[in-house]
Amino acid sequence: MAIITPSRRVRRTPFTAGVEAAGVTSYTVYNRMLLPAQFGGFVEDYHHLKKHVQVWDVACERQVEVKGPDALRLVQLITPRDLSKMADDQCLYIPVVDQDGGMLNDPVLLRVAPDTYWISIADSDLLLWVKAIAACNGFDVQVSEPDVSPLGVQGPRSDDLMARVFGEAVRDIRFFRYQRLAFQGHEMIVARSGYSKQGGFEIYVDDFALGMPLWEALFAAGEDLQVRAGCPNLIERVEGGLLSYGNDMTVDNSPLECGLGRFVSPMMLGTCFGGRALADEIAAGSRQMIRAIAIEGELPPCDRLWRVYAGGAEVGQVTSAVRSPDFGTNVAIGMVARSHWDVGTVIEVETQGGMRRGVVQAGFWA
Amino acid sequence: MAIITPSRRVRRTPFTAGVEAAGVTSYTVYNRMLLPAQFGGFVEDYHHLKKHVQVWDVACERQVEVKGPDALRLVQLITPRDLSKMADDQCLYIPVVDQDGGMLNDPVLLRVAPDTYWISIADSDLLLWVKAIAACNGFDVQVSEPDVSPLGVQGPRSDDLMARVFGEAVRDIRFFRYQRLAFQGHEMIVARSGYSKQGGFEIYVDDFALGMPLWEALFAAGEDLQVRAGCPNLIERVEGGLLSYGNDMTVDNSPLECGLGRFVSPMMLGTCFGGRALADEIAAGSRQMIRAIAIEGELPPCDRLWRVYAGGAEVGQVTSAVRSPDFGTNVAIGMVARSHWDVGTVIEVETQGGMRRGVVQAGFWA
Repeated sequence: MAIITPSRRVRRTPFTAGVEAAGVTSYTVYNRMLLPAQFGGFVEDYHHLKKHVQVWDVACERQVEVKGPDALRLVQLITPRDLSKMADDQCLYIPVVDQDGGMLNDPVLLRVAPDTYWISIADSDLLLWVKAIAACNGFDVQVSEPDVSPLGVQGPRSDDLMARVFGEAVRDIRFFRYQRLAFQGHEMIVARSGYSKQGGFEIYVDDFALGMPLWEALFAAGEDLQVRAGCPNLIERVEGGLLSYGNDMTVDNSPLECGLGRFVSPMMLGTCFGGRALADEIAAGSRQMIRAIAIEGELPPCDRLWRVYAGGAEVGQVTSAVRSPDFGTNVAIGMVARSHWDVGTVIEVETQGGMRRGVVQAGFWA
Repeated sequence: MAIITPSRRVRRTPFTAGVEAAGVTSYTVYNRMLLPAQFGGFVEDYHHLKKHVQVWDVACERQVEVKGPDALRLVQLITPRDLSKMADDQCLYIPVVDQDGGMLNDPVLLRVAPDTYWISIADSDLLLWVKAIAACNGFDVQVSEPDVSPLGVQGPRSDDLMARVFGEAVRDIRFFRYQRLAFQGHEMIVARSGYSKQGGFEIYVDDFALGMPLWEALFAAGEDLQVRAGCPNLIERVEGGLLSYGNDMTVDNSPLECGLGRFVSPMMLGTCFGGRALADEIAAGSRQMIRAIAIEGELPPCDRLWRVYAGGAEVGQVTSAVRSPDFGTNVAIGMVARSHWDVGTVIEVETQGGMRRGVVQAGFWA
C-alpha cells in the first residue's frame, strides 16, 4: 500500500498531533482533511471499540454555518425534512438533495443560536451549494466554514469518560440532543451522537487551540478505562448499517433509495430542491433500495463498486464490504433492484477477486 | 508515514491499475480521487521529468460539463475572465470566485461543442456551485460530471512520444489549444497543456474502458524514450510557480492576490460573481500577493500553513516549500503583505521545525 503524501491542501486537524502520537497506521481523506482510518488494524480497533471507549478525530466533519434572518428559510430549502418542530437542543439528520432529488450530502443539522445553524457535513463541499443558493436568492445570511472541529468519544464506556471531563451532566444528554458544557472554562456543544452503534458523544470544539488540551484531558482521565485513539470503524459501521456518503450513496441516489424515506416530509416537496423528483419517486415506487447483504468466501478490499448480478442480469451494486468477526460472515451494504431486493434473494457479487455468492438480509446485523 | 486506506469513496481512476503496476509509493487525494504523488521519490521523479517523458494519471482533474443554450451565459457568470473572444480550440485558465471575490477553484475551460463546455477543475466540488447557480436562475443547461479522465504526458520528449501514438499532428498543437485525435479509432481531445513547465499534453480520455489500453500504448511506444509513470512534482511545480488550489490559494484569497490579475477583465466585473469585491480591490490595491520565497536551512515537510514574520509582526504565510536540487535552495510559494512584498525583503518563516530565514524573490525559478 502507498503512503499518503503531506501537503497543506490535505488539512491537518486540531488533533493530528495526538493522532500521530497514538500511532495511526492508515489515513483516509475526507473533506480535504486527514481522517484516521486505522490504529491497530480494523479488527483490533473494532474489538476495542465494542468493549471500551475511544477518542476519535472527526474534525473532517466540517460545519457549514448559516447565520442571519433568512437562515431557517435557506436550510429548509435544501432538505426535504420538515424542520418546523426542531427543538433548540436537537441534532437532526437531514438528507440534502439537488434539483433532481440526488443526494448531495447527509449532514446533521444543529441550531446553535436563534438565527444560526451548523450543518455538520459528510464528504462533499456542501458549502458551495449553500453559498450559491444564498447568493442567487439574495438571502440575508452569511455562509461560512467556522473554526469548529468535532471530536468523537465512542464506545460503551463513553459516559464514564465524558463525565470525568465535562461533569455528570453528560449522562442526561438524550440521543441526538446537545448541551453546552465547559472545558477549561470554555463552553462547547456536546451532543450524544456519533458514527458508531456503541454509544457516545461528539464535542464541537470551536477553537483550534483547545484541540490538543481536550484530547490530552480525555486520555489522562480515561487511563483505567483503557481509552484509546480510534476512528470510524469499517466493520462496526457496516454491521450497524451506517451509510457512508461517497461509498454507499452518491448524487446518483435519492434519499428514498438510501432507505432515508422517513426523513422526507411530503409537505416539504412543493418547495424544497428536488421535491418534484422525490414526489414522482414516491408515487412510482423506488426502482432500487439499500440492503444489507451477506457475502460468502474471501473478499479483497472493497475499494471500488462491485456489480451485482442475478441470472446473468445486473441487478445492483455492493459499495462497502468486510469480514465481521462477531457475525462470522462478510457484511456488506449494497443497492439492489426491486426485482431482487426481497429477503433471502441469492445474488452474485463481482469483486476484483472473482464472483462471490451473496444473500439479501432482512436487516443489518447490529 | 501512514498508508492510505482503500474505499470506494476515494475513487480509483481508469489508470489506477497502471499506476499500481508502475510501483506508486505515495498518493494524495484530489477531488475524492486517487492522485499519485511519488513513484521513485520527489527528487528522482523530478530529474526524470526534466530530462525524459512521463505519463501522469491526472484523472482527478474532473470535468464539470455545462451543456445547453444557456451554457456560455452561465460560465461567464462564474468567472471574471472575458470569454467573448475564446477560440473554438482554446483552453482557457479561468479563476472562479464567490460573491466576495474569494477563489473557489482555478480550472481550465474548454468549449467542446457550440453549446457545451468542460470546466476541468482543481480540488473543490465546483459542480455544486455551478449546479446551484443553474438551478436558481432557471438556466436552460444540464450540469454533470461526465466520464472524462485526463491523462498527462509531460517532459521534453512529450512530442516524440505522443506523435508515435496519435500521429505527427500533435506537433502542430499550439500551447493551450486542442485537437481531436484518434486512438484505436476513438477521437479524443488532446491539448497542449499540463501541470509542469517541461512541456507536454493532456488527453481527455472520455471512456473509462479506454484508460488502460491508452496507458499501455504510451508505455509500449516510449520504451526507448525511457518513459515512466509520473505525477505532478512538488519540486518542479514550486520552481515554476505553478500554484495549487488548496495549498497556495483558498477561498480566503482573491485572484488578484494570487497574481492572476491578468485573467480578471474589468468589463466583466459588473455582472460576474464577486465583481464588486474585485473592483474594490483593484481600486484600493491588494493587501497581500503571491511571492516566490527562498528559504534557508533544513526544512520539514510543508504540510501546514507556515506563518511569516518580520520585525515580530505577522506579514504573511508560506504554503508550499521544498528543497530544489537544481537551484540549490529551498523554493517556496507564499502570500506576503504589501509592506514586505518587495524583492529582497528578508522575512522569518515559522516551520514546525523552527524559524527559518527567507528572502522574497523577483520571480519563480523556472
